[in-house]
Amino acid sequence: FNRQLSDLPVTIFTVMSALARQHDAINLGQGFPDQEGPQDMIRLAADALLDGQNQYAPLTGLPDLRAAVAEANLRFQGITVDADSEIVVTSGATEALAASLMALIEPGDEIVLMEPLYDTYLPVVRQLGGIPHIVRLEAPDWALPRQALANAFSTRTKAIILNSPMNPTGKVFTADELAFIASLVQQHDCFAICDEVYEHLVFNTQHISLMSLPGMRERCLRIGSAGKSFSLTGWKVGYVTAPAPLAAVVAKAHQNLVFATPPNLQRAVAFGLRKEADYFTALAQNMATQGTILASGLQRLGFEVLPYQGSYFVMADITPLAHGLDDVAFTRLLTEQARVTAIPASAFYDDNPPRNLIRFAFCKRPEVLIEALNRLKAWK
Amino acid sequence: FNRQLSDLPVTIFTVMSALARQHDAINLGQGFPDQEGPQDMIRLAADALLDGQNQYAPLTGLPDLRAAVAEANLRFQGITVDADSEIVVTSGATEALAASLMALIEPGDEIVLMEPLYDTYLPVVRQLGGIPHIVRLEAPDWALPRQALANAFSTRTKAIILNSPMNPTGKVFTADELAFIASLVQQHDCFAICDEVYEHLVFNTQHISLMSLPGMRERCLRIGSAGKSFSLTGWKVGYVTAPAPLAAVVAKAHQNLVFATPPNLQRAVAFGLRKEADYFTALAQNMATQGTILASGLQRLGFEVLPYQGSYFVMADITPLAHGLDDVAFTRLLTEQARVTAIPASAFYDDNPPRNLIRFAFCKRPEVLIEALNRLKAWK
Ligand SMILES: CSCCC(=O)C(=O)O
Ligand SMILES: CSCCC(=O)C(=O)O
Repeated sequence: FNRQLSDLPVTIFTVMSALARQHDAINLGQGFPDQEGPQDMIRLAADALLDGQNQYAPLTGLPDLRAAVAEANLRFQGITVDADSEIVVTSGATEALAASLMALIEPGDEIVLMEPLYDTYLPVVRQLGGIPHIVRLEAPDWALPRQALANAFSTRTKAIILNSPMNPTGKVFTADELAFIASLVQQHDCFAICDEVYEHLVFNTQHISLMSLPGMRERCLRIGSAGKSFSLTGWKVGYVTAPAPLAAVVAKAHQNLVFATPPNLQRAVAFGLRKEADYFTALAQNMATQGTILASGLQRLGFEVLPYQGSYFVMADITPLAHGLDDVAFTRLLTEQARVTAIPASAFYDDNPPRNLIRFAFCKRPEVLIEALNRLKAWK
Repeated sequence: FNRQLSDLPVTIFTVMSALARQHDAINLGQGFPDQEGPQDMIRLAADALLDGQNQYAPLTGLPDLRAAVAEANLRFQGITVDADSEIVVTSGATEALAASLMALIEPGDEIVLMEPLYDTYLPVVRQLGGIPHIVRLEAPDWALPRQALANAFSTRTKAIILNSPMNPTGKVFTADELAFIASLVQQHDCFAICDEVYEHLVFNTQHISLMSLPGMRERCLRIGSAGKSFSLTGWKVGYVTAPAPLAAVVAKAHQNLVFATPPNLQRAVAFGLRKEADYFTALAQNMATQGTILASGLQRLGFEVLPYQGSYFVMADITPLAHGLDDVAFTRLLTEQARVTAIPASAFYDDNPPRNLIRFAFCKRPEVLIEALNRLKAWK
């Protein structure tokens, strides 16, 4: 069998979700909301199944969804794109990322990444023969280490992967940090793969897409996720926005990987993307409230909660509570004894990870978060 | 950009479907039915959207669908498999194939393929650093060239890709041919990737899975497609059956490529796979009738129609009608002038293809096929 894949661990999300089920724990591990997305979207998706359009969608997506993604680029980020040639609809952001990396990487190309990082980035880069250059952001504030980042670029750099809002840290990159990254990308004449699946989940700040910065329009592949933007993670509808020549190559990767995405779900997502500002504001506000409930509760319990500005996630330093246990042992203990599941943050590092951080998801109803806090309190 | 992907042509199916739309032609190119799949499945998928289960499905698929796939293996092919560890649900057979190849191939591994072949096989094999060894089957009867096939295997062979029923030829491999292939696979201690998406579309013959042969249970990855088995090609639900250690690696490829498949569609497919024998018999019978209408009509018009025993497709030799035009020019002419679209078969070859064959899809209502034949007659 392929050694690299065989050696890959089963994703930590699956491992911890299984453990949570086994112990009947509240699952604040894997990032999925426990409230369904908009009922009108779901009903539209159901109705769309019934009107005889259940054969292959076009390779790059339904024209109406591509148009809606183009409109959203303009509306939310001021980015003008051509719906016909610059959008590729994918079966979720995971496929969007794999297809984007396939479109860019030739064996030997260097890819700059920032740690902690989402757990499919490195295996896909390596499978394609890419050479990762990893720059580590440090707790508690995850500031951009500018010199280290600049040093990670070389003449062989093909792309940087930028995840903002960032999983697992909840960091939202500032305008200043983005400008610095943009300057490096331009200076090294390379690309940025912008994983922006949490673009609508930012709190008391603005999400700025790297693609909206001067000179970056032709250098970015911007990835969005209907699952995250509409709390329908099971639908697996994603989209890539990229300059036309690059989008054409992403489409060819998609052709070999999946080919097309269910048309009824695409139709519902097109409708969702055109929702009034209210919807997106409420989504972020509710998530912010949930974040505050969880973060302040954890803080009261003695966790050192790290700052976050977006995403579904908050990181906590377990040092005050772990009695010397590392993050893996501690999350296991929490699941078994407190019946609350988190993700050990070492899973988001390649090598030599910190052992004192764990990630909690707050994309859960307030009463669920409060029950989790009560369980943690009772256990402590 | 990645050169191999950039150089890849846009799939012939997309090209010819676009041309068909442009000329308002009857599209007998891309293989998708024009009759919707079972209404009860579609309604189940719609209802399933409405009961609050729209978050991530498990990585390898819903337990109920995995159980249904395991049952179908036993019921249709007498193959006993473990639903928990030997089934991976994928976003369509295209992803199943990509994930299976990723699970097996290390750079430098040799892969045996039979030409004419489906158009994603070669690019994926090559992207993974696999070295294709292609054996050509020859019209009109596509008999297995046993000596050439034996010669294509070596000590470096990792797997053979076997597509039966075969696209584009409509060939269904015989028990005897399968036994020969099985002996080669065992002799060379390698694997078979069995693309059996048309398993239920065979006419006046039996489809035998290579996996059901003695000694092949542990050497096969068997790929099925709900799209093809239930005339719902847009749903993109596929499944891989493989021995547990190999299925685990396929799951890891799936983890990086897509991660999960929409749960409501999975629930409907589980229901579909448990349908009475009637359903599957009627599916094949209707398709057989459609095949006969098209094939006999083409024959009457002067095409040399080649034998087929399964799939959606019939191949025709255009020599008597093409006045020296090659397959590409002739299918273009047919679309523009007769307003009937077929696929030039040269698209199914790597190098030095025959130029006298085109593929027609008969997965269309009888009245559509008759109208297509009338158009061809009027044009001639
Ligand atoms: C695809 S499962 C993981 C979901 C997620 O984005 C996360 O928990 O980080
Ligand atoms: C994925 S589009 C092609 C459909 C098909 O299997 C064919 O036409 O051969």
